[in-house]
Parts: sequence; C-alpha cells; structure tokens
Amino acid sequence: MERLKSIIRDIPDFPKKGILFKDITTLLADAKSYQTMIDLLSHRYIDQRIDKVVGVEARGFIIGAALAYKLGAGVVLVRKPGKLPSETFRKTYDLEYGTDTLEIHTDAFKKGERILIADDLLATGGTVSAVVDMVTEMGGEIVDCCFMVELEFLNGRKRLPEGKVFSLIQF
Amino acid sequence: MERLKSIIRDIPDFPKKGILFKDITTLLADAKSYQTMIDLLSHRYIDQRIDKVVGVEARGFIIGAALAYKLGAGVVLVRKPGKLPSETFRKTYDLEYGTDTLEIHTDAFKKGERILIADDLLATGGTVSAVVDMVTEMGGEIVDCCFMVELEFLNGRKRLPEGKVFSLIQF
Repeated sequence: MERLKSIIRDIPDFPKKGILFKDITTLLADAKSYQTMIDLLSHRYIDQRIDKVVGVEARGFIIGAALAYKLGAGVVLVRKPGKLPSETFRKTYDLEYGTDTLEIHTDAFKKGERILIADDLLATGGTVSAVVDMVTEMGGEIVDCCFMVELEFLNGRKRLPEGKVFSLIQF
Repeated sequence: MERLKSIIRDIPDFPKKGILFKDITTLLADAKSYQTMIDLLSHRYIDQRIDKVVGVEARGFIIGAALAYKLGAGVVLVRKPGKLPSETFRKTYDLEYGTDTLEIHTDAFKKGERILIADDLLATGGTVSAVVDMVTEMGGEIVDCCFMVELEFLNGRKRLPEGKVFSLIQF
C-alpha cells in the first residue's frame, strides 16, 4: 500500500490557495498500480452479492466502472443536474459555502438491491453522505462506501453509515 | 449485439427539442450487458500492446476505466478546463454553436506510447477528433478510437483516423 500511496502526487494550492490536493491521476495512469488498486478494492466484496455499483460524477466513474466490471455488477451514475436524460430523483445538500445538487435515475435500481457506492476520495464526506441518503430513500441497501483515498483528518467517515466505509489509502 | 442494442433507451427531445437521445444508462445498469460490452470491446485489443486508455469526460471514463483494467493499461483523463491539477495541454475546438476546450496532463503518457481512445458514443466526432489531435501532438501513437455506440448517420467516423474507429452498436 505504501507503494500505491507514494505514486499519488501532491499539488499545492489546488483548487485554491492553502489546499494540498492529492492528485490520483498519476496512480490511474500507472497500469500496474491501477489494476492492483481495483483488485484490492474488489477483493473485499468478491464473496458478497453486489447488484449495482454507484459511481459519483466524475472521478467516481473511474473507480465504480472497473469495480462493477470486476464484481459482475451494473453501473449506476450519480450526476450533476441536467445530465441524466430520464426521470430523476434529486438531492440538494449543503457545502462549506453554498449548496450542490445531484441526480440519479428513479429506475436506476430496484428496491432491496445491494448497492456499493464508489468514489475516488473521501474528504469531508458531504457528497457521499448525500448519495447515501438518495440510495436509502430510493429503497437500496447500502453494502459499503468505498474509496481509493481517505483524508482521515477531515473525519468524513463520521458522516457515513458506521462500519460501512472502506478506503485503500489514508492520508 | 441486437440484445445489447435493444437495452439502450430512446429519450425524445433531450438535451433539446428534436433530438432523440440514446440513453446508455440502462445498458450500464444491466450487469450482464455491461460485462459483455467491455469483454467485446477489449477482445479487439487483447493481443495488442495498449499502454494507456484515454477516457473522455465524463461518460468516457466509464468505458475507458473498465477497458484499461481489462487490458492491463493505465487510465488517462481528458477533462473540461480547470479540473486537472497539474500542468496541462489544452485544445479549443469548434462545436456546431461556439467552441469547447479540453485538457490533458502534459505528463499523462510518454512519447511513443500506444493509446486507445474510449468514449461512450460517437456522434459528429468533434470531441474525439480534438482528442486525437491532442494525443498526436503530444507524441502518442493512436491505436484506435473505440465506442459503445455509433450514430452512423452523423458520419463522425470521417473526422477520425481512417481504419482506426471501432464501435460495438450502430444506429
């Protein structure tokens, strides 16, 4: 895991001054690291039934799609408003400054289906917590929320269902 | 292929009146269809060396990530401006109305690496044609541009390198 961790690049002052951004694109571009990461993440769920992997726009798609392929699950997209063409369930949630809105197709999964939520990075947990609410309100059963990277000092995990959070790399 | 094709849903008047949108989310959500699609796409490249799969934001990530995983290649992201944290190569290209800009990290791949470009749908080809130019100008060798779906009546294929376009499903 230290090898994977060492490939992630620090970008100072992105997206704004004072933030040290963890750039995972260097890990994604490294074929062996990318494959190892998907194998390690999926290993945790390989003996469980996962019906759908929910990927959060846009970097969550990169993790969610490969995980779904590996686990034999369907891919469900959570997107910014106006991107999904059919009837959607919408959720507006609070950010540090202002709000954000996410959408999911109302027929994206059936009630009772077992859902794995995937994103690249767990920071404050605001976005994924909104996704958890959406999936739950729509009748999905959350198996886990999984992440490539977790910024532990931001305590995002506390906003997510207890015991249902997994990350591969921690900072 | 007819079975995969039949799962794609028609949405009239999206994103604007008069357009019949091909909604692939129904295919992505169907575990068996999604897996079959990735297997069929990757089958074409399995005996070739692919160093990087370039996914085009955002739906291209869903195809590109799973293909890269299956082919043992790295994933490279082409994104809208301001999303990539490190130094980027930018390209502005013409749309039907106005222009659009895409970015790729300047160190996303090495000169001479073999690149597969992946996107969900080939329409007029404007976006992918810009991506082809970017990859070529940066010294990458284009192996192919591959798509889940091709809207043949829009002739997008003509704007892409001859003999280097592959689609699974045609409308």
